[in-house]
Amino acid sequence: MKPTLNISSKAAQPQALHEVGTELVLRRVAIDTYRENVAYLHRDCAIYRAEGFQALSKIEVQSADKRILASLNVVDDLALVGCHELGLSEDAFLQLGLDDGATVTVSQAEPPSSIGALHRKISGERLNAEDFYAIVRDIAALRYSKIELTAFVVATQRDELDREEVYFLTQAMVASGRTLDWHEPLVVDKHCIGGIPGNRTSMLVVPIVAAHGLLCPKTSSRAITSPAGTADTMEVLAKVELPFDLLAEIVREHRGCLAWGGTANLSPADDVLISVERPLGIDSAGQMVASILSKKIAAGSTHLVLDIPIGPTAKVRSMPDAQRLRRLFEYVASRMHLSLDVVITDGRQPVGNGIGAVLEARDVMRVLENDPRAPIDLRQKSLRLAGRLIECSPDVRGGDGFAIARDILDSGRALAKMNQIIKAQGMKPFDHNNPELGQLSFDVLAKEGGVITGIDNLQMATIARLAGSPKVICAGVDLFQKLGDAVVKGDILYRVYAQYSSDLHFARQASLKSSGYTVGLLGDVPHVFVEF
Amino acid sequence: MKPTLNISSKAAQPQALHEVGTELVLRRVAIDTYRENVAYLHRDCAIYRAEGFQALSKIEVQSADKRILASLNVVDDLALVGCHELGLSEDAFLQLGLDDGATVTVSQAEPPSSIGALHRKISGERLNAEDFYAIVRDIAALRYSKIELTAFVVATQRDELDREEVYFLTQAMVASGRTLDWHEPLVVDKHCIGGIPGNRTSMLVVPIVAAHGLLCPKTSSRAITSPAGTADTMEVLAKVELPFDLLAEIVREHRGCLAWGGTANLSPADDVLISVERPLGIDSAGQMVASILSKKIAAGSTHLVLDIPIGPTAKVRSMPDAQRLRRLFEYVASRMHLSLDVVITDGRQPVGNGIGAVLEARDVMRVLENDPRAPIDLRQKSLRLAGRLIECSPDVRGGDGFAIARDILDSGRALAKMNQIIKAQGMKPFDHNNPELGQLSFDVLAKEGGVITGIDNLQMATIARLAGSPKVICAGVDLFQKLGDAVVKGDILYRVYAQYSSDLHFARQASLKSSGYTVGLLGDVPHVFVEF
Repeated sequence: MKPTLNISSKAAQPQALHEVGTELVLRRVAIDTYRENVAYLHRDCAIYRAEGFQALSKIEVQSADKRILASLNVVDDLALVGCHELGLSEDAFLQLGLDDGATVTVSQAEPPSSIGALHRKISGERLNAEDFYAIVRDIAALRYSKIELTAFVVATQRDELDREEVYFLTQAMVASGRTLDWHEPLVVDKHCIGGIPGNRTSMLVVPIVAAHGLLCPKTSSRAITSPAGTADTMEVLAKVELPFDLLAEIVREHRGCLAWGGTANLSPADDVLISVERPLGIDSAGQMVASILSKKIAAGSTHLVLDIPIGPTAKVRSMPDAQRLRRLFEYVASRMHLSLDVVITDGRQPVGNGIGAVLEARDVMRVLENDPRAPIDLRQKSLRLAGRLIECSPDVRGGDGFAIARDILDSGRALAKMNQIIKAQGMKPFDHNNPELGQLSFDVLAKEGGVITGIDNLQMATIARLAGSPKVICAGVDLFQKLGDAVVKGDILYRVYAQYSSDLHFARQASLKSSGYTVGLLGDVPHVFVEF
Repeated sequence: MKPTLNISSKAAQPQALHEVGTELVLRRVAIDTYRENVAYLHRDCAIYRAEGFQALSKIEVQSADKRILASLNVVDDLALVGCHELGLSEDAFLQLGLDDGATVTVSQAEPPSSIGALHRKISGERLNAEDFYAIVRDIAALRYSKIELTAFVVATQRDELDREEVYFLTQAMVASGRTLDWHEPLVVDKHCIGGIPGNRTSMLVVPIVAAHGLLCPKTSSRAITSPAGTADTMEVLAKVELPFDLLAEIVREHRGCLAWGGTANLSPADDVLISVERPLGIDSAGQMVASILSKKIAAGSTHLVLDIPIGPTAKVRSMPDAQRLRRLFEYVASRMHLSLDVVITDGRQPVGNGIGAVLEARDVMRVLENDPRAPIDLRQKSLRLAGRLIECSPDVRGGDGFAIARDILDSGRALAKMNQIIKAQGMKPFDHNNPELGQLSFDVLAKEGGVITGIDNLQMATIARLAGSPKVICAGVDLFQKLGDAVVKGDILYRVYAQYSSDLHFARQASLKSSGYTVGLLGDVPHVFVEF
């Protein structure tokens, strides 16, 4: 069938077209819809009626030189948006970048051009590099609705992505944002896949390796599901939200920094995907690999040490799973020309004693100052990670890194470097001997004697978050006992700090429901085999 | 490892607990979030801070005797919600069923109990009947967020559901709502999987089979993606939103009805799932079968004739696809003890001449009145479907149904029955010889002579919707030519009616982009093989 198109069209009432008014007045609606653009139109708005828009369909909002896509919510209250107004949620308003009262037009949005590729992925097809570029570009531009994002996340999890596709996805995510070039042959970084409270090794590894002379421009995230991220903890000691030019200057002068990564626009699609992965609790291997490696490569890293903790309440719970994840990381890193060293570490319990920004900053400073109260596990783990990175130096023999790192720490050179970085970023007053903790607290005590046989990472994180972390930096949990410690009845297991009585109440209820600690016999302490 | 739980907990400042205030004042926020419960809390609300809520996390809203779940949007405008207020979107407000100003408490929601099963399905496991019951119960209670709903829809599409699982899902969807029992051995119904504009056979089949004495309590939906649903078209002639008791009375007295199904609470989970399937354009076989059969079984049907149209722009585009779909419908219907007759029909073009509620009502009334202008295809298809249902009667021989149906129609008994039903439901004034159509119109003309070789169902539906359907009932498209008709240059292909100039403008733009008609040689008209 060869169709021939033979039509003409005439308007019976041509003058009618002149009445079409498609302009609306922009209005900022102060609702945080969390990385989804939402537009609000009144049900009686002529354009809403005319376009046959339906709730949840997508519309395109246009000004003279910008256009964004948004999901539509229909409003029946003239106080929210009037009939001649277009309301935009915070994210959408900022993305459009116009002032309140500006003139905009709206139209039914063409689906993002990558929707065809998305549907092919949903149908189980293998996608090529161009498909991933198109999808990730649309995601980064917030052209996907939450529903489409979720469809992408679900359709690419489990074994739905082969390792070649994970490589394509990683590549596309790097390309979706800015990439940094430090103009040095060796740019080192470390990263942990997460899930272990208190695991603030970056704040020790960076000053150690920078003191050794390696370039380590570390950018970190704030807490997403944890009680504190490295950026939150560093913020106790110094400013972390730095203009990119200042950050680059600090890195060039001091060989390292500990800054928040949000200002650098590295792999922006990642942040959008996280907004649906997190509430869904999906953290599949392919997506994790693409997320982490894209951020690191965009940041200009050439050498990465990656920490995969393993334990009964860690993200990875068995050695075969850890090794499968390691192989995927290694394959993609190799395709992306990133030198990667994966270490599989002990994730049976929180690292250090403190959970929460101020408490974790205290632990970090105690390690740097070689204070006898410094948590030994945090010190040892940081030294080993730093040692691995130091061995990336062409002049260091394999196996010598740990001793070099220890010498840098014990000699006070790591502390001096940290103080330089803190000063450069903008020092904040902090006394680790007298940290300002929440005014309210309660202790959780051992009911009977025995040995600590389990500390639940997830429950300790929950209690710390209910106590106010990460928003209230002085809130958190201070662990008095770690795995294998012997306790008698009445010993303090941990102390919870909060600033507000309601926070204390919620944290206490959670600890009553489950303390997170198990006490038993020494032989019951679970073993863990690590590759470090 | 046998963990022994030995803890006690004491509050250092026990009086603090008395300060905890968790009560908020309920406020209706007039935003239609389309079947997702959304709650609005001010960023400075003490409870928002205390609970460590994050945007998009789910909260539970409780009153003395009700509780609902809602996704959280954070608000920065005191005019929208105050610090002591909890805002709820329209759906959520109605579901909670309290008045503005009522006292409610909120807490971080426990995940719906079926989330474990959802995650197993996402991981590719086969679920059992109990899993589907739990998931569908949570969906019907609006306990799933859009993100979780999408995850379920994507994880159960394609071949992810085996036919046994489709049966479990169907069963669970029936159980999620009300089921009707008409206390008769034979309750007949017909259904079409959709996608063909103008396909208003129900409004002919119901009066014909009811006139024959069969019980046919037909409930229909309004248009979802089409220019008009059966409920929209029937509403031109009579009231369709009827209290259930009245509907039941009409059915008992007149053996049939043509009502909107929304008031009956049949398979409510289906309506929720549709809210994400539609924007995503997912309409997988398993979900379609569960959706349609659950509605019919909940409505008390014992015998169903199911119409699967097939054609280049229909939902099903090849005979093997149609047959695969037929087998799945038959398997599940058989497990549910529903007698099912599947017919595969001609879906190459719209049925009848009119597209849009008033135009389709005109076509239906012309067929009932045996008006010479009645569209022959609508008449023939309706007679064949009615004939199939009539053959369900124990006293009708196979093959005799069509002739009986034709006799009922030609003799005026179908028209008389329709008038009874219209009167019982509440007649509206309508003159099919002089239907009130949109004041504005334009014609689309043939540019050259030839034979109509294609009419795009999707494009005709789009043009009708842009012209105002289904909201503006007098808007729509009137087809002057059908497949195989010969035209000369300047002949009218179709006329578009609109009530508003902006609607006319948008419809005209769409028809200029693509008229939906192709003109060529007689031999180019596509053939279709049907099973009818």
